[in-house]
Amino acid sequence: MIINLRDQIPALKNKYYFNYGGQGPLPKSSLEAIVKTWEIIQDLGPFTNDMWPFIYKEILTTKKIIAQKLGVNSKNVALTENISSGMILPFWGIKVEGGEELLISDCEHPGVVAASREFCRRNKLIFKILPIQKIKNLNDENIILEISKNLNSKTKILIISHILWNFGYKIPLKQISIELKNNRENSYLLVDGAQTFGHIKIEDEVFYSDLYSITSHKWACGPEGLGAIYVSDRFIHETDPTIIGWKSLKKEQGIYEPSDNLFHEDARKFEVATSCIPLLAGLRNSLDLLDKDCTEKEKSKHIKRLSGKLWDSLSQFKEIELVLEKKYLNGIVSFNIENIEDKYKFVKKLGEKKIWIRVLEDPKWFRACVHQMTTNDEIDLLSEEIKKLPGNF
Amino acid sequence: MIINLRDQIPALKNKYYFNYGGQGPLPKSSLEAIVKTWEIIQDLGPFTNDMWPFIYKEILTTKKIIAQKLGVNSKNVALTENISSGMILPFWGIKVEGGEELLISDCEHPGVVAASREFCRRNKLIFKILPIQKIKNLNDENIILEISKNLNSKTKILIISHILWNFGYKIPLKQISIELKNNRENSYLLVDGAQTFGHIKIEDEVFYSDLYSITSHKWACGPEGLGAIYVSDRFIHETDPTIIGWKSLKKEQGIYEPSDNLFHEDARKFEVATSCIPLLAGLRNSLDLLDKDCTEKEKSKHIKRLSGKLWDSLSQFKEIELVLEKKYLNGIVSFNIENIEDKYKFVKKLGEKKIWIRVLEDPKWFRACVHQMTTNDEIDLLSEEIKKLPGNF
Repeated sequence: MIINLRDQIPALKNKYYFNYGGQGPLPKSSLEAIVKTWEIIQDLGPFTNDMWPFIYKEILTTKKIIAQKLGVNSKNVALTENISSGMILPFWGIKVEGGEELLISDCEHPGVVAASREFCRRNKLIFKILPIQKIKNLNDENIILEISKNLNSKTKILIISHILWNFGYKIPLKQISIELKNNRENSYLLVDGAQTFGHIKIEDEVFYSDLYSITSHKWACGPEGLGAIYVSDRFIHETDPTIIGWKSLKKEQGIYEPSDNLFHEDARKFEVATSCIPLLAGLRNSLDLLDKDCTEKEKSKHIKRLSGKLWDSLSQFKEIELVLEKKYLNGIVSFNIENIEDKYKFVKKLGEKKIWIRVLEDPKWFRACVHQMTTNDEIDLLSEEIKKLPGNF
Repeated sequence: MIINLRDQIPALKNKYYFNYGGQGPLPKSSLEAIVKTWEIIQDLGPFTNDMWPFIYKEILTTKKIIAQKLGVNSKNVALTENISSGMILPFWGIKVEGGEELLISDCEHPGVVAASREFCRRNKLIFKILPIQKIKNLNDENIILEISKNLNSKTKILIISHILWNFGYKIPLKQISIELKNNRENSYLLVDGAQTFGHIKIEDEVFYSDLYSITSHKWACGPEGLGAIYVSDRFIHETDPTIIGWKSLKKEQGIYEPSDNLFHEDARKFEVATSCIPLLAGLRNSLDLLDKDCTEKEKSKHIKRLSGKLWDSLSQFKEIELVLEKKYLNGIVSFNIENIEDKYKFVKKLGEKKIWIRVLEDPKWFRACVHQMTTNDEIDLLSEEIKKLPGNF
């Protein structure tokens, strides 16, 4: 089946691609589904009574599919523009008191880090870093241990990624949630799912979080400019919306009408206003293609086998330092190469051979991503070229 | 030239369309430009070194064109998802003190109103309504008079639309700005440009505001899910970003690096993260088509002539109450019809004849929009059908 899926993805035809965690390639039929939706909107509307039922159906159908993948109810799912707006927009509405603590892992995206700092500054919260990078043996036990050490009676918010974008390690969400809530019941667990959705099965874990943010355009191979969040019932009821638009409101009421009870009592409370509806069909089509390509079990097996193959191959090369100490259980393989000062030049050199991996910023090392459409030959080529390059640098 | 432009717009082929202020129809070639961009991104990327120069060029080219239309510098322009996120996201970063006042006109969109209320609630500001709806003779002088009456030493923020979406009246931005700044120099004028961009010439007025929010998908006939804001230098320097992502940051730096001086010192400070880049080419193409269809002067003349024709025609019908007392100077014609209780049913009935106008929510009346592609025949048909319907209702 793998060959069929690749055939549908134009971006894979002229390159060897290992940046699924940066942006996934868009299948041709997903772009066609987007275009088709635009044509329907223009045929029915764009602003007519005939259009609204179509738009609402697009939204509901898409939310239902996303909700299934997240293992949650549709009413707890809101659509967003990207991971950052999904992570950050809702947390500005958390009711906090000066002196409380926001704990954030040191493996989070710089945008989320900067927003967290700003949130703490304005609300007089303590910005506290959860040090994961320094952990010698990265395993569930050590992560939980480090978290417990950093929790106290003032901890209000914990921000962490489900799969750490730099290490590629999948954190134990359930145990972390238990740890956090045991420490203080009315705290919030905010989870960045940038590296999970479309990559690994998460339907048994998302609901342990209070907020879980995903995007269409990475592992799910959908269009850019579309994301979604899961928000728990408690999060919906206890927090306020911040960036408000017609989508947050029960109805578009007059300024002189009563202003209480304005907002939807589900996740729509955190949606804003007009977004690009045609993108939804693109995401649905991509998810459908990934599902039809192979079962969740086959996908996981394939990804593990190929990332394991890459790991084994790189580990034989003495100048390459694999970031984790044992084989990865997902599609992210991070590594460093001794004696390479200019990492960007190295990536550029690989790129000249149509092989694309990326440099991560923090810490600075390389990341290669293996997806269900990655082939044995691609892994062989990548390993060989990585081994060849340093000598000729 | 008008017939050529209509030929390029599929949505106008099967209906008589008067909802440009709700959503403008997307020309076929704009959709093609969007698709072409997606194909280029897939060919170059989607996440490779080759892609970034293309993406940056797309962004810079688009900002330059928008900046020209707004009569401002590109560095003061940020891209957004829609009007609401453009209006609301930046104002959360204004430094305010409890007890100061936010003055908002009673002709603003319910989303902006609700967000303003929430901003006031959290920051202990006074939410004050600027009453425009009650003004008997809506003219520049009376608006300025009403504003002066409502300004005082505590006024920090004034929120108003450049063209009032319900009345269709264009407010005197320059005089309002002078009035506001004379009252208190460090106050902010935030302007909703939903009904101006692509409709009227605004390049001599935008810079009188501190924040001016526009969208691609209304009068400019670009794709939905794309907007832009102008922010003044003063706004950029004096306010903080709130929803932060990689686009707001100078660089994606590590959590242990110094955290001062993180943000761009131009309008990008208010941008967030990954958005749908292919939409930019669609907007550029639509703007180009509108420009090529006729000169700004011809466009204005055409729109005034046809909205005047509609106004004259409706004014002859005794059951129709035109909302403004004299002929409009732009493409928005708002009116009410006596004895029609269920306005939605009336719009639906017109819709059955493929004629589309809309009901506004606040106050509840009808709005018809006339654009440069509207024809004499459409105006005749709309007038006739409006006159026919009430009797048969």
